[in-house]
Amino acid sequence: MANITKVSPLAPAAFPQLPVIEGVAFSTIAAGVRYAGRADVMLAHCVPGTTIAGTFTRSATRSAPVLDCQAKLGGPSRDGVAILVNSGNSNAFTGRNGQAATAAIVERTAAATGVPASRVFTASTGVIGEPLPYERITAKISELNDSLSPGAIAEAAGAIMTTDTYPKGAHATCEVDGKTVKIAGFAKGSGMIAPDMATMLVYIFTDARVDQAALQAMTSTACDATFNCITVDSDTSTSDSLLVAATGTAGVDATNDAGFETALHDVMLDLAHQVVRDGEGATKFVEIAVTGTVDDASAKVHGLSIANSPLVKTAIAGEDPNWGRVVMAVGKSGAPADRDTLSIWFGDTLVAENGWVSPGYVEADAAAHMKSDHIRIRVDCGMGRGSATVWTCDLTHGYIDINADYRS
Amino acid sequence: MANITKVSPLAPAAFPQLPVIEGVAFSTIAAGVRYAGRADVMLAHCVPGTTIAGTFTRSATRSAPVLDCQAKLGGPSRDGVAILVNSGNSNAFTGRNGQAATAAIVERTAAATGVPASRVFTASTGVIGEPLPYERITAKISELNDSLSPGAIAEAAGAIMTTDTYPKGAHATCEVDGKTVKIAGFAKGSGMIAPDMATMLVYIFTDARVDQAALQAMTSTACDATFNCITVDSDTSTSDSLLVAATGTAGVDATNDAGFETALHDVMLDLAHQVVRDGEGATKFVEIAVTGTVDDASAKVHGLSIANSPLVKTAIAGEDPNWGRVVMAVGKSGAPADRDTLSIWFGDTLVAENGWVSPGYVEADAAAHMKSDHIRIRVDCGMGRGSATVWTCDLTHGYIDINADYRS
Repeated sequence: MANITKVSPLAPAAFPQLPVIEGVAFSTIAAGVRYAGRADVMLAHCVPGTTIAGTFTRSATRSAPVLDCQAKLGGPSRDGVAILVNSGNSNAFTGRNGQAATAAIVERTAAATGVPASRVFTASTGVIGEPLPYERITAKISELNDSLSPGAIAEAAGAIMTTDTYPKGAHATCEVDGKTVKIAGFAKGSGMIAPDMATMLVYIFTDARVDQAALQAMTSTACDATFNCITVDSDTSTSDSLLVAATGTAGVDATNDAGFETALHDVMLDLAHQVVRDGEGATKFVEIAVTGTVDDASAKVHGLSIANSPLVKTAIAGEDPNWGRVVMAVGKSGAPADRDTLSIWFGDTLVAENGWVSPGYVEADAAAHMKSDHIRIRVDCGMGRGSATVWTCDLTHGYIDINADYRS
Repeated sequence: MANITKVSPLAPAAFPQLPVIEGVAFSTIAAGVRYAGRADVMLAHCVPGTTIAGTFTRSATRSAPVLDCQAKLGGPSRDGVAILVNSGNSNAFTGRNGQAATAAIVERTAAATGVPASRVFTASTGVIGEPLPYERITAKISELNDSLSPGAIAEAAGAIMTTDTYPKGAHATCEVDGKTVKIAGFAKGSGMIAPDMATMLVYIFTDARVDQAALQAMTSTACDATFNCITVDSDTSTSDSLLVAATGTAGVDATNDAGFETALHDVMLDLAHQVVRDGEGATKFVEIAVTGTVDDASAKVHGLSIANSPLVKTAIAGEDPNWGRVVMAVGKSGAPADRDTLSIWFGDTLVAENGWVSPGYVEADAAAHMKSDHIRIRVDCGMGRGSATVWTCDLTHGYIDINADYRS
């Protein structure tokens, strides 16, 4: 695994002060799964009555814990929920041993917490294809259960990190029926980031009460516009999972509340941006807004084609307003485009229009924008009313350093 | 443009000695389109009776010369053929000016060579989105026509280079009806290489006679298994074109000759491999063979997903037999796969089988293979009889150097 410890230059100044969500408690421990000298297992416990929704990688080679979680969503909410996550080893592509390891962890967590096994969700993140030394984890679960604390969410965010250079947290509040509802969550992710459903590990908690079906619908919709609109390197993980748990402890129902849905979306977007800002080797955060397509899906296809293009990403790293590479990426995406109605902006500078460089374009204007660490590229296809925004980072020597020289 | 002049470590020892194809002549000239002190325009002329076939980029933003060529394929063969190519500027995304520049070059070439404009094929390769200074080219066409020579094919291969570090040529002979038929061709390409149809510029000549429809069918089939099976960086050019010209001067008809079709395929494969070996920053040539899929198309999807994965490509650069990343790339490809029937080899070493690391696997064996500059990865999906082989190169600091620091 990578021992690159320098924090991303795009990291937030500090981990946010997350509110306590009543009905949820956390604990962490150093089990020595792979890393020495740091917490690498986290347990979260939610009170009976908690509903839970999730999205997962669509990879055909997804891991044993992902398959186990997917089978458990939608269960009854009368019981509590336990979430147990280890870093250092993804328990992916580990054959029948992988299922056995997951089953052992689930069983031990159920026994220690009193939560039924059908409500124990696990995840593993780290190296692929090596046997998970699960006994190191199961040996610590009683101790984890004994040290659960409502205030330990920041430690939980730290325990699930792999190549991340900083822990990622976000929160929001909203009013539902005159009462304040809180949402707090955390995420890990840095490389192998190109979600096709969810990606990375993301855990979000709220004290609102939300029907399971409604919570799942809100989660899927928000995931589509946040985590599924980011990419670091076009590679999709075998492990990654997003869970949203609603404890209902605020005594108010947000099942049909648009303000709650917006707040949940905002927390996901904040976490998704933090994952991009920790993209392996990233020196620039890049926002790509595509408009004027025949539909929204086409705009996302164009946006991700631009965001995943190694030539666009290296040009950004080199601070080169090389809009020809944006044209190339639109052309190859497979979504409808008309060369002669394309317009492209770098920052606020109109670079190209009507199929050619804009008459008023002065390269120095676009070049000045490229010096920023927050790059904005806008593409209008001039064909319809579809739109989408995606986010990525640049492709630098740092990415090669991290991934060519270390087994992560 | 890149002024990286070091030749790829994977380059062939020398440009091959290409045979003269009777009925074809070449000339080159330094027109100063963008590069100083080197030939940057080439003219090829083929005798009346030549049939011509081609494949072109499927980019939605393809260049004016590509659109012009596509409209001209399939014309009558009673007249000669002229091919005029410049490097340094792709005349792509140059609006109406792009069409006007192409028309001017075609018209002047027709006038100088006596070939009708409908049989003049042009191509431009280099920077996107800058106006082509076509007068520099048209001013030289008479001189080009006056210096046509059957032996100048190597010079032609050099004149079309952009970021290429060496010229690429290949040839073959075969017997048709007891007579020897010759095939010779050349190509350029180094970055923005992920063909979806053809990509790069490729020109192949033969003295066989081949019906236009048969020549097109052979060309498309061979292209699918050669140029469409290579990738350097997943980016697809707006300009790229492959033309095959059959002069008929050998006095023998290869329209239905399987041996000729194989020889044509072999020349294309040789050139395609040379393009990969000149991949920007490449230090390793990588062959990825996928078998056991439900059909051939699925095998190609898996193969290209592995070949385009930045995590696989950086692991190869780092000489790390990180087969977990191969599992990831198969999982994300979208084609059918079953985690538990996957087998993976690095070189001759069986690394993984039945959904997990092979019991007999010793990492040192695979690690030894990774030191080679010709990496062989084999994946068997254990699902059916489909297969495909694709080729790529590693992703190194050299790629970032070339593309972050220079406008190409």
